[in-house]
Amino acid sequence: MTYCVGILVQDGLVMIADTRTNAGVDNIATFRKLHVFEAANDRVIALATAGNLSVSQSVLSLLGDGLEDPETGELTTLMTVSSMFKAAQLIGRAIRRVYEVDGAEMEKRGTTFDVMVLLGGQIGKGPMRLYQIYSAGNAIEATQDTPFLQIGEPKYGKPILDRAISYDVGLVEALKLGLISMDSTLKSNLGVGLPIDIMVAKRDALKTGLSYRIQEDEPYFRDLRDRWSAALRAAHQAIPHPPYIDETF
Amino acid sequence: MTYCVGILVQDGLVMIADTRTNAGVDNIATFRKLHVFEAANDRVIALATAGNLSVSQSVLSLLGDGLEDPETGELTTLMTVSSMFKAAQLIGRAIRRVYEVDGAEMEKRGTTFDVMVLLGGQIGKGPMRLYQIYSAGNAIEATQDTPFLQIGEPKYGKPILDRAISYDVGLVEALKLGLISMDSTLKSNLGVGLPIDIMVAKRDALKTGLSYRIQEDEPYFRDLRDRWSAALRAAHQAIPHPPYIDETF
Repeated sequence: MTYCVGILVQDGLVMIADTRTNAGVDNIATFRKLHVFEAANDRVIALATAGNLSVSQSVLSLLGDGLEDPETGELTTLMTVSSMFKAAQLIGRAIRRVYEVDGAEMEKRGTTFDVMVLLGGQIGKGPMRLYQIYSAGNAIEATQDTPFLQIGEPKYGKPILDRAISYDVGLVEALKLGLISMDSTLKSNLGVGLPIDIMVAKRDALKTGLSYRIQEDEPYFRDLRDRWSAALRAAHQAIPHPPYIDETF
Repeated sequence: MTYCVGILVQDGLVMIADTRTNAGVDNIATFRKLHVFEAANDRVIALATAGNLSVSQSVLSLLGDGLEDPETGELTTLMTVSSMFKAAQLIGRAIRRVYEVDGAEMEKRGTTFDVMVLLGGQIGKGPMRLYQIYSAGNAIEATQDTPFLQIGEPKYGKPILDRAISYDVGLVEALKLGLISMDSTLKSNLGVGLPIDIMVAKRDALKTGLSYRIQEDEPYFRDLRDRWSAALRAAHQAIPHPPYIDETF
């Protein structure tokens, strides 16, 4: 399993991904799922993947090699596409290419062709955007109404985002909320695990503002988890008793 | 969809269930999913159901009619079984009986035979117990280590329970935590909806301490939701900024 979340707010982009892969519960490994493609003053693109590891690694390899543009025939990579929309389409084509090669045989052997990509970033003077790309290569985009997208195991970490994320939340606040959402998922799902990779990019900066790996014993993340747990305890204890509970309780 | 949670703590039992049933998103109705069987000073039993409504209603009807005890041949109901373990077995048998009648044809038509039951309560001098009974009629039981069980859509409401529920939490606190867990689910899943039925029974009281329906506009539940949202906002804002974020953010 995997948990990745992308948050696109007024001030910029936050991408967070865990690093655990597992086949069942007894074949666990650490793989980087968050990848940054960057050329200062030109583009900053972050990509997070979930699903079958062989598929997502093949997609990344194809993106590194480049794919022909269907119109011009030119070899295109994430470093050369001219817009984020074209980047999303490029990834969609890469996924379909991997499906052409491996999909039929995988399905014949009972393995689902399952991959999901979060793509966030900004190219040149274009807008900053955040996409979620599906196994079929189609994509949806985050909007001001729904400024976050999740892949992998989204449910445990969704309530805090549903309550607290809005487009006008500050960038650091968005990062903290993403980390809390990740913490809720870590606590409830064994298939999601530390270390955690984070990437933050300010809008129009066209470079990574922060690229960081939170390791198992990182004091800040441990402190955030402790504070969050303590605050939740205090919060539910501070809620009054229901009026329909009488004194005998 | 459905969300029901049972919490068995030192002081007693809390059972909470929503009332929404839906086929897709456009066929929504309200059905009671929490049922209480009670005889003062003898037994208090609460039952919550999730899954296919035709199956859970048939199971309830069979339980009302009674099933033969496989050893004695006597007609047995929840009002006559001699222990909570036997009550769980009785429900298991009722589920299997419904499967015998409807299962094959349902599956032939592409409908999953899908039912899940939470059973909590106490009979006579026996211990208070909480079970989760599966579609095959087998059951698991809550323990002091894991004092809550969930059926239906468990994930959104699980993080708060994972963090805050323990066996020594007070009964009213367990009720509040169950309501917060329900609120998180309501917020994130359209298939779970008000009104909410709640049932609380103190250990060894052998009667319902509280049986209550929270309606759409109930001031206490609205207040609980508002306070919880406000407390979460205050909690994440009070967490310090990551040390690896510099002043330019």
